[in-house]
Amino acid sequence: MAGTDHSEKAVEWDGPQPALVLVQPQMGENIGAAAGAMRNFGLDRMRLVAPRDGWPNPKAAALSSGAGRVLDGVSVHDTTAEALADCSYVFATTARPRDMIKPVMTPERAMAHARALLAAGQQVGFLFGPERAGLENADIARANAIVSVPVNPAFASLNLAQCVLLLAYEWRRQHDTVPPEVEELCRTRRASAIEVDKLQDHLEEKLEAAHFFWPAHKAPAMKLNLRNLLSRLPLTSADVRISHGILRALDRRRARRDTE
Amino acid sequence: MAGTDHSEKAVEWDGPQPALVLVQPQMGENIGAAAGAMRNFGLDRMRLVAPRDGWPNPKAAALSSGAGRVLDGVSVHDTTAEALADCSYVFATTARPRDMIKPVMTPERAMAHARALLAAGQQVGFLFGPERAGLENADIARANAIVSVPVNPAFASLNLAQCVLLLAYEWRRQHDTVPPEVEELCRTRRASAIEVDKLQDHLEEKLEAAHFFWPAHKAPAMKLNLRNLLSRLPLTSADVRISHGILRALDRRRARRDTE
Repeated sequence: MAGTDHSEKAVEWDGPQPALVLVQPQMGENIGAAAGAMRNFGLDRMRLVAPRDGWPNPKAAALSSGAGRVLDGVSVHDTTAEALADCSYVFATTARPRDMIKPVMTPERAMAHARALLAAGQQVGFLFGPERAGLENADIARANAIVSVPVNPAFASLNLAQCVLLLAYEWRRQHDTVPPEVEELCRTRRASAIEVDKLQDHLEEKLEAAHFFWPAHKAPAMKLNLRNLLSRLPLTSADVRISHGILRALDRRRARRDTE
Repeated sequence: MAGTDHSEKAVEWDGPQPALVLVQPQMGENIGAAAGAMRNFGLDRMRLVAPRDGWPNPKAAALSSGAGRVLDGVSVHDTTAEALADCSYVFATTARPRDMIKPVMTPERAMAHARALLAAGQQVGFLFGPERAGLENADIARANAIVSVPVNPAFASLNLAQCVLLLAYEWRRQHDTVPPEVEELCRTRRASAIEVDKLQDHLEEKLEAAHFFWPAHKAPAMKLNLRNLLSRLPLTSADVRISHGILRALDRRRARRDTE
């Protein structure tokens, strides 16, 4: 659950979505991890072509983090052609091929294109090759376009589930309703201008008493600086109350010390 | 290596980058997987706070897919404060906290902000909590902002390495020099207009002979449709040559059949 937002307000996403087709996946664990990766970003439609260890596979369930909705809906096919039968546009996730003439897209571009096709009522498939070996040329030849994750040229080690995760993330990222930045004000509220003004007054009063504003001709500029400082801080009402308390406490301490 | 682009033209990325700080990571395997995830997208600076099993950890190396450059550069710290000592801006990756007042950003927004800070010469840190438990409030309180991956509210199961992978991907995605879409023309070239014209002429000639354009008054429109069809196809010079060969072969076959 690292770094995730499970706000209760949000709801399950719906609408048309692409099918993710795993061609000859070997380990059930990887199928499960891919299913979990998909579910994180609202993708539910997985198809398998000739999984090595058959289907269903208990190891897939064990590694899916509970993405039963994806695994229960899996369809199994003998050939890639059969798995793609209803797809009018197919993306192959693979390294850039050396001898095929196809558009090569980033995940970002590919998912934008997939969204547009789906919105126009077309069915879209994404092909993922087996672990290690990757997609064979015969499968890549079926694709209308290549998706290549632009990894570090000096180090490329994305595995099957990671590749699925990144594409699923892109699927979601581009049309998310989550605002890019929000300020959380859950149990309190941001301080009003009058509250900040009163804090400023309190602070000035205490600092006057402590002979802080010296020399006298610089006092106006010093007070202005303080006001700028306070207005720059994202203070809540609670912060303001605490600050008043701090000022009173420091004043009592000073008063006590003065009388000692 | 699923779906990755390891074009030989590309070079290692450089320039300032954030530090990724794993707080009390438990399993060496996860540290290794996080290091591998970072290297895929050119991030090299990992720091560890009190790793449970000490450091170095042979299990980290085994799972890093060979990201020795990250693991060799790891610094180990007793406290989160020490690990962040040089950072002037800190992001905490965590679910949206219920009782803290901080900006909450998507990975996209956070990485854009991090890029801007780094470009201004500031040092930026990203905090990642231990597996399962996640970051403690005392660590989150050190952060200037929260990063929350907007996962499916009905299903959130990102693990530590996946969270690192998505942030590293975002880091790279926003300033990648890889074009969003390229057409690969490796061993051949796209057909010129004159080549396509000649193919059209050849096709029309053969179709005229086969009495395809019928009724006669519709012939101009039918020819125009064919020309539109050909111009829509992303033909290469090789495709055009093959098409000429197909037309000749079909013609020979028809001629043979006609004489039988």
